[in-house]
Amino acid sequence: MRAARFYDRGDIRIDEIDEPVVRAGQVGIDVAWNGICGTDLHEFLDGPIFCPSHEHPNVITGEFPPVTLGHEMSGIVNFVPNGVEGLKVGDHVVVEPYIVPAGEPTGEGSHYNLSEGSNFIGLGGNGGGLAEKIAVDARWVHKIPDSIPLDQAALIEPLSVAYHAYEVSEAVEGDTALIIGAGPIGLLTAAVLKAKGIKVIISESSEMRRQKAKETGVAELLLNPMEDDIVSKVREFSSDGKGAAVGFECSSNQFGFNTLVDAVRPAGTIVVVAIWGKLAQVDFVKLTIKELKIKGTIAYCNTHPKTIELVASGKINLEPLITGKIGLDNLLDEGFDTLINHNETAVKILVSPTGIGL
Amino acid sequence: MRAARFYDRGDIRIDEIDEPVVRAGQVGIDVAWNGICGTDLHEFLDGPIFCPSHEHPNVITGEFPPVTLGHEMSGIVNFVPNGVEGLKVGDHVVVEPYIVPAGEPTGEGSHYNLSEGSNFIGLGGNGGGLAEKIAVDARWVHKIPDSIPLDQAALIEPLSVAYHAYEVSEAVEGDTALIIGAGPIGLLTAAVLKAKGIKVIISESSEMRRQKAKETGVAELLLNPMEDDIVSKVREFSSDGKGAAVGFECSSNQFGFNTLVDAVRPAGTIVVVAIWGKLAQVDFVKLTIKELKIKGTIAYCNTHPKTIELVASGKINLEPLITGKIGLDNLLDEGFDTLINHNETAVKILVSPTGIGL
Repeated sequence: MRAARFYDRGDIRIDEIDEPVVRAGQVGIDVAWNGICGTDLHEFLDGPIFCPSHEHPNVITGEFPPVTLGHEMSGIVNFVPNGVEGLKVGDHVVVEPYIVPAGEPTGEGSHYNLSEGSNFIGLGGNGGGLAEKIAVDARWVHKIPDSIPLDQAALIEPLSVAYHAYEVSEAVEGDTALIIGAGPIGLLTAAVLKAKGIKVIISESSEMRRQKAKETGVAELLLNPMEDDIVSKVREFSSDGKGAAVGFECSSNQFGFNTLVDAVRPAGTIVVVAIWGKLAQVDFVKLTIKELKIKGTIAYCNTHPKTIELVASGKINLEPLITGKIGLDNLLDEGFDTLINHNETAVKILVSPTGIGL
Repeated sequence: MRAARFYDRGDIRIDEIDEPVVRAGQVGIDVAWNGICGTDLHEFLDGPIFCPSHEHPNVITGEFPPVTLGHEMSGIVNFVPNGVEGLKVGDHVVVEPYIVPAGEPTGEGSHYNLSEGSNFIGLGGNGGGLAEKIAVDARWVHKIPDSIPLDQAALIEPLSVAYHAYEVSEAVEGDTALIIGAGPIGLLTAAVLKAKGIKVIISESSEMRRQKAKETGVAELLLNPMEDDIVSKVREFSSDGKGAAVGFECSSNQFGFNTLVDAVRPAGTIVVVAIWGKLAQVDFVKLTIKELKIKGTIAYCNTHPKTIELVASGKINLEPLITGKIGLDNLLDEGFDTLINHNETAVKILVSPTGIGL
């Protein structure tokens, strides 16, 4: 079968490789769609980060390059070995792409997203969604209802990132939230918050991204930090004039973070969702005087069933976020290149490893 | 009467001024003891910060310099006007030195410490504890039992700062806490945590401060960041090897903060208690990957009754923290100078405005 594999920084190849063997406790899946994630771009431009290298094989899978890429995937079950319950051939599924240490608890109330050495299928090994087929431990395979098309289902994974950020924020219905940055994660976070009855303000400097945010209908107020006084606009919009109850940093931008420190109300919460490539500067005097909370959020933990339910119920429409569909051969020229060099117009580009549906 | 008054940076004078008039709803108090706080030193060295200036009178009291200093005070009630309940002449009391906007809620569940423009008696106006007498709104006067000596009672105010930091941390019995810095607030925070059944580790570079911390008996483990590998020592000490559940930044030191980021366990909390004079650098990658929480804490809110109870019950002994007792005439030479230039040996210096007890 064909697979996109990471060899090293700047070196991703479409290879012909053996189909995966479905072991006991696993499920075989024909990949329908796999979204390209900012993390994939980081690996290509600056990696290996989550991907292993020859010097540093993945500590859990033991794999070293090349590794198959792709961790935002939907597909159709093609094989279920004896002993695996709850899934059958033909089921539409999404993969929660975790690699966790052996014996790590993964039930309700666990925090496997914080387990030491944890990594992701499609980055750290165990195959990936940018291949025709994958074999995945049944624990990480979630059945989706027919009401969710397979293309939108490929966005369940980044939607789970957004949903977990919402959980970390502890925002409640009626709160006002300020999101800095309307990239994919900013828009998905806005979609979750809106579905939960939270009033969303987005600050985004790109005209085209603001336009896309407008199309999705996820924000009650769209602001331009190059023109608007964000802090006073957010205060005006908030019910008591004190500012947003929660803020989400989805831009990796110091100026954006500073805006949150001023626009979030006393005792409010700032959730850092973006992965920052540099140290952030934080005004601890403002942190203390306002008793702000700054919280980190990483990936998700027992979140997929909740996001599947939100999409199935129609409370979130993922369709407007899909801005491109390509085949595996065009991964680099139409996929990576578009997202790296023309990322203001592209939100989520989906790849069909088999070409079915294109 | 005599009072220490702030005129401007570097200009504090002992003046003869009129005794305060006790208005309706207030209580008249003879000041017994007033502690010198780091904030007083900041006003002297770098102010005006909380103190008003001629250009910026206090927005609530309307006062401008000179203003009487002193906000850590104990005393004896000398006058109670008709209509004030629950206090009588001769009662031993401490003052919760708040200045809040008119109409600000101050009951249980309120957050008057976060009210806009709030300030402190002894900094922003309304008299101060570095004077022979003071008149204070009855709301801010707390009766103390005879079991708490008036000298130790002057430390109830900074103890409330520490208690509120503990509340913000959400630490629970059995947790391990790492405190960076064994100055007055670090030691008082340690005392509160110990009283709450939390295992305290203190990291402090000064040999003399570590010695003082040892005398107070508040820490289970005392570390020296110049010699010890704090992160591995904290992990070893924690029950499951993952690090401290909570950390308290009481040093205004970047290196100390960085240590907390590494020594606090995943999903743990760092409380910033110190007032930083510069921007902090924060590694947001570590923040997100560990899902750390960084929380600011400022002063206290409905905390005094709890700290009075803790001291009255004998769970906290404030006596070892009193390292000096002086009269008002020696405020600058024996008080401020000692704390500014010899602060490794001095923890809390108390001032008796009347000289009684010296």
